[in-house]
Amino acid sequence: MYSLKELDAIVSRAVNNLKFVKDPEGLYEPLEYMMSIGGKRLRPRLCLTAFNLFSDNIDKQIVSPSLALEIFHTFTLLHDDIMDRADTRRGQPTVCRKWNDNVAILSGDVMCILAYKYLTEYTGPNLQQALELFIRTGAEVCEGQQYDMEFETMPAVTQEEYLHMIGLKTAALIACSAKMGAVIAGAPQAMADALYDFGWQIGLAFQICDDYLDTFGDENVFGKKIGGDIMVGKRTWLLVEAFKRTFGESRRELERIMAMDASQAREKISQMQQMYVRLGIKDDADAAIEHYHAEALGRLQGKGFSDSQIKQMADFAATLVHRRD
Amino acid sequence: MYSLKELDAIVSRAVNNLKFVKDPEGLYEPLEYMMSIGGKRLRPRLCLTAFNLFSDNIDKQIVSPSLALEIFHTFTLLHDDIMDRADTRRGQPTVCRKWNDNVAILSGDVMCILAYKYLTEYTGPNLQQALELFIRTGAEVCEGQQYDMEFETMPAVTQEEYLHMIGLKTAALIACSAKMGAVIAGAPQAMADALYDFGWQIGLAFQICDDYLDTFGDENVFGKKIGGDIMVGKRTWLLVEAFKRTFGESRRELERIMAMDASQAREKISQMQQMYVRLGIKDDADAAIEHYHAEALGRLQGKGFSDSQIKQMADFAATLVHRRD
Repeated sequence: MYSLKELDAIVSRAVNNLKFVKDPEGLYEPLEYMMSIGGKRLRPRLCLTAFNLFSDNIDKQIVSPSLALEIFHTFTLLHDDIMDRADTRRGQPTVCRKWNDNVAILSGDVMCILAYKYLTEYTGPNLQQALELFIRTGAEVCEGQQYDMEFETMPAVTQEEYLHMIGLKTAALIACSAKMGAVIAGAPQAMADALYDFGWQIGLAFQICDDYLDTFGDENVFGKKIGGDIMVGKRTWLLVEAFKRTFGESRRELERIMAMDASQAREKISQMQQMYVRLGIKDDADAAIEHYHAEALGRLQGKGFSDSQIKQMADFAATLVHRRD
Repeated sequence: MYSLKELDAIVSRAVNNLKFVKDPEGLYEPLEYMMSIGGKRLRPRLCLTAFNLFSDNIDKQIVSPSLALEIFHTFTLLHDDIMDRADTRRGQPTVCRKWNDNVAILSGDVMCILAYKYLTEYTGPNLQQALELFIRTGAEVCEGQQYDMEFETMPAVTQEEYLHMIGLKTAALIACSAKMGAVIAGAPQAMADALYDFGWQIGLAFQICDDYLDTFGDENVFGKKIGGDIMVGKRTWLLVEAFKRTFGESRRELERIMAMDASQAREKISQMQQMYVRLGIKDDADAAIEHYHAEALGRLQGKGFSDSQIKQMADFAATLVHRRD
């Protein structure tokens, strides 16, 4: 088994070697751009890590599908940025700003299609299962984005609705990444399914962590402005809890803060942070992350994994939920 | 071998039985809508026709992939309509008008993904080849759309550039449809390749025919307003030829007509039609359609097709180029 560091190095090298350059340049340039502005490469890393539990034979047959996961994820970011009218992504201008919406639509489309190209560079006996998993997950990610958009115009969202949404939008592809590695390695079905469930739970933890860092992170480490979610009133784990915990006077207070506009950005963010602390939501978000983290590890129990396999996945999980960026 | 009419009936039934309905409704409703507003179903019909040259066993293994071609095509229309700011499609409001751009982007995305779902309902030995063909073609269609958009801001386009563009945007998927049927039927490689070439040539004829009908068609039969291409200055076979054939005074005349705006729609369309007739472009478009039609049939010669196989494809080709709608 490789160390997580060695697996990261394989992913980094593979991503750096990705070459889309082809005619027409206007179509493919945004793909290179999106891949070049960085990212945690979480999905290919998880895919390789899961694969490596069962096989040390890391070649194109697994590296290409792992890239497919990253390419698909990046395609969804590209289109999400149009829908969200986002100006920046990872501190750089979004494709829809640097070019325009039409470029972002069409380059995203070809990026989605190329994800399938990379996936099908795996030619082994489990291709049909790998495809079915990848296709179903792709549809789920779209469903999650649809719910996320619908939430924007809903007065309040329940915790159940929120978890269903981030499950589809974020956890599904992370779960798919873990299972994809197992499927391509030819792992027993029960273990592949356990890795899927592990990925789903750790994906929920990952998203709540993201929500947390957007409000309580260290700007210099997190790499983007703190309070973005607060400013646009995004339905995060924190805000959903705030709606659950406020009535009467405190609800009016919450609504007063939410109604503050961009000219009062600093006050709005600060007051919302204080409210989250006062209501115990900050601490409970930490607890929720730990809850799903523990759930994830629990999903691997009793499925026949060895101690060293469990430890590898636990080490991977820890990097996701104890991150500060 | 089935008659073309019988094959049409199979396609119609399969399209009518397509059911996307699923949660969230807001995501899937536009897919049902787009499939319901009609269309010639050319691609699935061609796919089944090519398949049926080699096999009478028409079941889900070929019907689902043929639907994948139609679903993929419909996805590209959905996104093209956003990029072209189109108000209507087949006489009905486009998805981006009936709903909005975000809905059109996301519903298009899931439609693209579902095309792969239908394709992979074929589980036979040639899946890898079918996927490779479908994926490569998908990228080509995006490339063609990119060239088409780039042409809008180019002063003149050569006939070579135009043919390259419509080859990618239109002919590639038609070629893919013909070859897909052959690949899934397990036809000899040379025959599958010949059907691809046949499809490419007939695809060029089909597009030039489309250009022709948009300017010289009968509005009541064609089903949409005549002169749409003229009004927006679209680079069609006719306009590309007009640029090739005009200099000095006649070029200034062409540019004068092109500069006329929507308030002079009737005059603009009529003057352009007259110019096309005067320059011999109308007749030559007819000849070009016949040229590519003949090229298409030529591609099937000497590849081992029987007379009845050739006749079936020739009959199919005739319906595409002798159409008036």
